[in-house]
Amino acid sequence: MNSLDTICALSTPSGSGAIGLVRISGPQAITIVNQIFTKDLNQIDSHKATFGLIKKGEEQLDEVVVIPFKNGKSYTGEDLVEINCHGSSFIINEILKLLIQKGCRTASPGEFTQRAFLNGKLDLSQAEAVGDLIASKSAKAHQIAMNQMRGGVSNEIGELREQLLHFASMMELELDFGEEDVEFADRSQFKALLSGIKDKIEHLIHSFAYGNAIKRGVPVAIVGAPNVGKSTLLNRLLNEEKAIVSNIAGTTRDTIEDEINIQGITFRFIDTAGLRKTDDQIESMGIERSYKKANEAQIILFLIDERDVELDIPDLIEEFGKNLKRDDIEVITVLNKSDALSKKQLLFLNEHPGIVQISAKENQNIDELLKRLVQTVEDLKMGDDSVVISNLRHYESLMHALEGVERIEEGFEVELPSDLIAMDIRQISHHLGEITGKISTDDILGNIFANFCIGK
Amino acid sequence: MNSLDTICALSTPSGSGAIGLVRISGPQAITIVNQIFTKDLNQIDSHKATFGLIKKGEEQLDEVVVIPFKNGKSYTGEDLVEINCHGSSFIINEILKLLIQKGCRTASPGEFTQRAFLNGKLDLSQAEAVGDLIASKSAKAHQIAMNQMRGGVSNEIGELREQLLHFASMMELELDFGEEDVEFADRSQFKALLSGIKDKIEHLIHSFAYGNAIKRGVPVAIVGAPNVGKSTLLNRLLNEEKAIVSNIAGTTRDTIEDEINIQGITFRFIDTAGLRKTDDQIESMGIERSYKKANEAQIILFLIDERDVELDIPDLIEEFGKNLKRDDIEVITVLNKSDALSKKQLLFLNEHPGIVQISAKENQNIDELLKRLVQTVEDLKMGDDSVVISNLRHYESLMHALEGVERIEEGFEVELPSDLIAMDIRQISHHLGEITGKISTDDILGNIFANFCIGK
Repeated sequence: MNSLDTICALSTPSGSGAIGLVRISGPQAITIVNQIFTKDLNQIDSHKATFGLIKKGEEQLDEVVVIPFKNGKSYTGEDLVEINCHGSSFIINEILKLLIQKGCRTASPGEFTQRAFLNGKLDLSQAEAVGDLIASKSAKAHQIAMNQMRGGVSNEIGELREQLLHFASMMELELDFGEEDVEFADRSQFKALLSGIKDKIEHLIHSFAYGNAIKRGVPVAIVGAPNVGKSTLLNRLLNEEKAIVSNIAGTTRDTIEDEINIQGITFRFIDTAGLRKTDDQIESMGIERSYKKANEAQIILFLIDERDVELDIPDLIEEFGKNLKRDDIEVITVLNKSDALSKKQLLFLNEHPGIVQISAKENQNIDELLKRLVQTVEDLKMGDDSVVISNLRHYESLMHALEGVERIEEGFEVELPSDLIAMDIRQISHHLGEITGKISTDDILGNIFANFCIGK
Repeated sequence: MNSLDTICALSTPSGSGAIGLVRISGPQAITIVNQIFTKDLNQIDSHKATFGLIKKGEEQLDEVVVIPFKNGKSYTGEDLVEINCHGSSFIINEILKLLIQKGCRTASPGEFTQRAFLNGKLDLSQAEAVGDLIASKSAKAHQIAMNQMRGGVSNEIGELREQLLHFASMMELELDFGEEDVEFADRSQFKALLSGIKDKIEHLIHSFAYGNAIKRGVPVAIVGAPNVGKSTLLNRLLNEEKAIVSNIAGTTRDTIEDEINIQGITFRFIDTAGLRKTDDQIESMGIERSYKKANEAQIILFLIDERDVELDIPDLIEEFGKNLKRDDIEVITVLNKSDALSKKQLLFLNEHPGIVQISAKENQNIDELLKRLVQTVEDLKMGDDSVVISNLRHYESLMHALEGVERIEEGFEVELPSDLIAMDIRQISHHLGEITGKISTDDILGNIFANFCIGK
């Protein structure tokens, strides 16, 4: 990876289309394109679209519109040229071959964005958001990525880091005065600052549950006794006949996944095998997998039917809960087939208003269930804060930073010397710096940009 | 179809990518984009790329680069705006929805190019070439489309048409002078002109065999007796194990097609069932299909092996030729497995130098065969003329024009009155005008542009 190279790539999706966009970035971008283009880009103003021909020797290869971005006023912060050609694979390949002949190198995945980062056009968290933005499939995921790309996360992290670094400097200054026992850094002021920083870091860490669910789609497992209507509910939710529905208990053995967008949130629904004691080996493997899937879910739709209504539902839920290994899973109890209820049963349900009553088969009250699903996800968000962490790498760095904060708190309690506390502070700011890329290694960068598409 | 509408479409292939390009064309293009873009395009120079945000109400939808093309200096000849956004389906759909909300209509397939035609930016033959250019998969097909888009065909046709119209006017002028018996239009000069025009039209008509073959790929049928190695040759040519090869005669029952590019020409190879008398009903259906395919081919590779060498090969070919219903099919006789030949057999072959000797299995002399294939296609071209007809619609119009020319020639012979001849001339110029779109109907236009992709 050498930023002195001039790189080129197709930046639009491959395949046939009206237009294809080839981008060239690097110090030789203008010179190289000039060798194959009928106009002299040196004579064309930066940012100005110009019509002309791409020539391969004497042969006219295509009529194109070319835009030069000069003096680093470009996405990458380098000289950049865009060639809008006809969207034929043949033409695009010929143009790329010509560019490589004239001295370009094929760009690696994400290399344009990586150069933007290296040239200070975006920080690392913003660069990562570009990838997320392209991958976003729902309004909420898009909103989180867009906010991150616009610098939301960076600003929050940057402020915390500034405050910490300022304090660490003050403490280190004290050390220079050695014996004099001055205190530039007001300890009580610092403790208040530290407590504020801890709050913010914890808040960001908590936002990851929401951010990650939104980004990857919220996994929702549908569990319940055999033949309670899990597959029918899944079909109703997906609005199609994906799962095989039959009234033979134990029909669903594989877990089935599919996605839908509800009010801008992507939900990944998981149908599971019915939970019961069984001697059938294949079915019991299915049940085992059901519990496994349930434990990977963010939300569980715990489906019961009229046969369960007179049982003690809280006990029923508790019994099921024993099989859950995490305590952050939200369980929504859903009573299916409610059209078949007796008056006595209805009376019972009035005492348990948290239970959503539906009929999957008759399409009754499904809207209410969807509302509960959306509300459950929104509740994860904890407030109206627009800065949401959705990146595992950021989450991990924040966890490390939080550990550091706790270490400092302990340090104060045992009256640790200032130089050791200052070191811990620098450690926290290191972890925060990893998020925005103030601190980065080639390994981190390599991992991040390798997941991008080529041409970005 | 109303050119007062403002239309919008995604002009790059759908799917995830770094960049997506949305185009808006029509009288309201600037006004509409201004409603969703953070900068005022009225303040931006034409052709100048500008960075800004697309907003959906208060929400920031995407960071984009927008280029306005003003005062008809655009592809369509109308006000046109290009929005370069991030290549996410979600973002692209949101932008298109916003544009439609603000007054755009979704463009029909080819509607941008159709507007370019209606606004005189390209003639019809050039507009058709845009579609061909995007579809081109080989260098030669690309070259024909490019030449046509650059006006090659149009110029040739336009000249012929001008000359004819001039002459028709002269003849019609004579009629105004009625009794006076003047001759503005020199008959012998016209006959020479007509003969020149006839030559050119015939030349263009002949070029269609080449143009069409290049555009659609040259169909090459491989035929021969059972077990002569047809499938082995096909595999060798395709460089992969596509056909099932076995030494049981009659293995190949279906015809198999695949394409390869050789020196810029696309060949479509067709393997066929072995030709022999058989009682097997399925096999005899395969043989029937072989002859059918052979008759649809442009080139036939007539494969024989060492068992046939001592037979009278011209007789063999003649026998096979009886089953061909067209006389423009080129038959290349190929002797397979030539490594197994006796001296006597080699002697025999010396007397038949037109036969290509190969070993498909041992990969011998395949290059020679490829060279013969390319040469056979090049020979279709008849000369170095760069103007090649590759469009069936043009071919048909030229055929009509040729009929008209022949009618005039007959007219001169029977000394038809000038006014009737002038009508025939106008008829020819009508057919030539159909090619460039000087003469067009909504039906013709509808057919042509319906085959384009949306966004072009």
